[in-house]
Amino acid sequence: MSVETNIVTLTVQLFDVPLAEVLSDAKHGDHTHFELITVTVRLADGSEGTGYSYTGGKGARAIVAMIEHDLAPFLLGKNGAEIGALYEAMQWHVHYVARGGIASFAISAIDIALWDLRGKRTGQPLWQMAGGAGRSCGAYCGGIDLNFPLPKLVKQTEGYLSRGFDGVKIKVGQPKLADDVARIAAIRDVIGPDRALMVDANYSMSVEQAIEAARAFAPYDLLWFEEPTIPDNYKGYAEIARTTGMPLAMGENLHTIHEFEFACADASLSYLQPDASNCGGITGWLEVAALSRKHDLPICSHGMQELHVSLVAAQSNAGLIEVHSFPIDEYTTRPLVVENARAIAPDTPGTGVTFDWEKLRAAHASLHN
Amino acid sequence: MSVETNIVTLTVQLFDVPLAEVLSDAKHGDHTHFELITVTVRLADGSEGTGYSYTGGKGARAIVAMIEHDLAPFLLGKNGAEIGALYEAMQWHVHYVARGGIASFAISAIDIALWDLRGKRTGQPLWQMAGGAGRSCGAYCGGIDLNFPLPKLVKQTEGYLSRGFDGVKIKVGQPKLADDVARIAAIRDVIGPDRALMVDANYSMSVEQAIEAARAFAPYDLLWFEEPTIPDNYKGYAEIARTTGMPLAMGENLHTIHEFEFACADASLSYLQPDASNCGGITGWLEVAALSRKHDLPICSHGMQELHVSLVAAQSNAGLIEVHSFPIDEYTTRPLVVENARAIAPDTPGTGVTFDWEKLRAAHASLHN
Ligand SMILES: [Mg+2]
Ligand SMILES: [Mg+2]
Repeated sequence: MSVETNIVTLTVQLFDVPLAEVLSDAKHGDHTHFELITVTVRLADGSEGTGYSYTGGKGARAIVAMIEHDLAPFLLGKNGAEIGALYEAMQWHVHYVARGGIASFAISAIDIALWDLRGKRTGQPLWQMAGGAGRSCGAYCGGIDLNFPLPKLVKQTEGYLSRGFDGVKIKVGQPKLADDVARIAAIRDVIGPDRALMVDANYSMSVEQAIEAARAFAPYDLLWFEEPTIPDNYKGYAEIARTTGMPLAMGENLHTIHEFEFACADASLSYLQPDASNCGGITGWLEVAALSRKHDLPICSHGMQELHVSLVAAQSNAGLIEVHSFPIDEYTTRPLVVENARAIAPDTPGTGVTFDWEKLRAAHASLHN
Repeated sequence: MSVETNIVTLTVQLFDVPLAEVLSDAKHGDHTHFELITVTVRLADGSEGTGYSYTGGKGARAIVAMIEHDLAPFLLGKNGAEIGALYEAMQWHVHYVARGGIASFAISAIDIALWDLRGKRTGQPLWQMAGGAGRSCGAYCGGIDLNFPLPKLVKQTEGYLSRGFDGVKIKVGQPKLADDVARIAAIRDVIGPDRALMVDANYSMSVEQAIEAARAFAPYDLLWFEEPTIPDNYKGYAEIARTTGMPLAMGENLHTIHEFEFACADASLSYLQPDASNCGGITGWLEVAALSRKHDLPICSHGMQELHVSLVAAQSNAGLIEVHSFPIDEYTTRPLVVENARAIAPDTPGTGVTFDWEKLRAAHASLHN
């Protein structure tokens, strides 16, 4: 058994994927493309699994370097079926130059490949392996749209609704708070009183600014206010929540289970949004999901909808997945499936995420040729 | 002015430097070599400065990739004299794949190069730029010696004393606590009652184990017990300190100012040990030094003695520098100078760290040819 499942090759690929247009948020500025890092692991029995991570345009070369130089040599010859043990071993192997950051992205991509392999070898889809509570979950569209003029923001929202979604998130953090409020009011008008509306400041505000903003946003019945201030300031989050009563959400910038523990203990969050591409893959994400239940928080996700649909749907405390503006799913053989405003997890063995390599290569080439 | 000091080139080099023998600790296992990453920044006026970071043998390729692909293109053409602004800008530039981890190492190397440039352009040595409180500080030798049989450990200690040092740190974390105790007792015998003795578990213990160990170590008058448990468990540190009264130290695994803030707020430390190679360079280290004064803690350092001597000596609350077993200083033109058991900071403009490139190249080649 251990011979059959020993890791014999680990292949890393990097794709720069252009966006259809420039997308902006309050803290990362303009995005022209995203970076997709894929890892394909092959076992001695010939089975293969693929995992991945992504970035907003920076860091992928460092992720690739860590996988190729530090993690791959360490993993070759080890038993690829022992996902939990390998996860722990990878964390310790690079601990001095970790914890979190690039190491979390690198470990995530490998861990997802190992889960893909497990599913394929055992005939199980991810939603079953990840808990099996359900096969569908709520979904909302998250725009990276701080730079969109209001008419364009409205049009984007109408597009979401026409595609069958019933939740919308927009960026906030305009130079004038009144402009944020006007945009929120306009989008609430477009979607009506019953659909979910969220905002995301990408930690561009001080605690004081966030409190002022939360008060100004109060009339618009937001489901949550995402990353009002820097992720490190857990107690600042709690102050915003306590002072204003606004439900808060974060997770995309928390990269270790310890950071999620601090957030759960101190930040008075209402929603958790781990991203399996940067919190330790499926192993790391499921640890956060277990933590979310201990703290009675709905578990949501950031980015990578084609994978997170299976993870979120599988939880008894499923929240909503974000349908992110980096359209990774359009480069797979099964872009996200939405029925009656719910996202449906793939039912095929493994993660259910199969890349269209030709399309990825063409996208990368369009940027670099 | 801004034209003269604009950054025109940024050159990265990587050296794998073999150790004279295999060195081990309780959590990172065997070290056969360390990795040194150097960054040389050239300004439009022709001035040059060099900074660096290092690792225990993993991660350097990722650090190099982040500098070359993400940070260097961002910095070229910017004003290299504006160190504080560039420091902040670098942190935000790679924030999504940071905070901490590889990004902190990469930013550190660049930041140190900018300080070297500042010192050379203004004629100031680092100890003056960093505060100027003094030009010398206490120093102790830190062994990576968990695998040394006791006679060898004793001999190493005698070697430290004969080189003029009056402080010693040994690794703990033997399979049997009694063996740790026997080694501590033996070294205390060798150095006598008045010299400083410290131990370092490299976070290999649970809180419960650390409490048991601290109690067993109590008769030997330790100056501190370093990293008894994982760095993330700040409150666990406080529990160890409160339960046993043992002075605790950490810092080498804290990579952002926020992590140091958590440690100062929650961990009941007695000493802080930031490492400028991985906590944001000289800018990051000085932020931690300011924090240490707010919390009335002596400021110490980890590794890189040839640079930290200037930083620690310059502080009004100077603690001790560690003379680390990765002998980076032997690859510079001025290995650490010790007089009357005190380390003396270089008095030349810049960091005072000038690499012997030929020696570094030869060391690297000896591993790779
Ligand atoms: Mg967000
Ligand atoms: Mg140490």
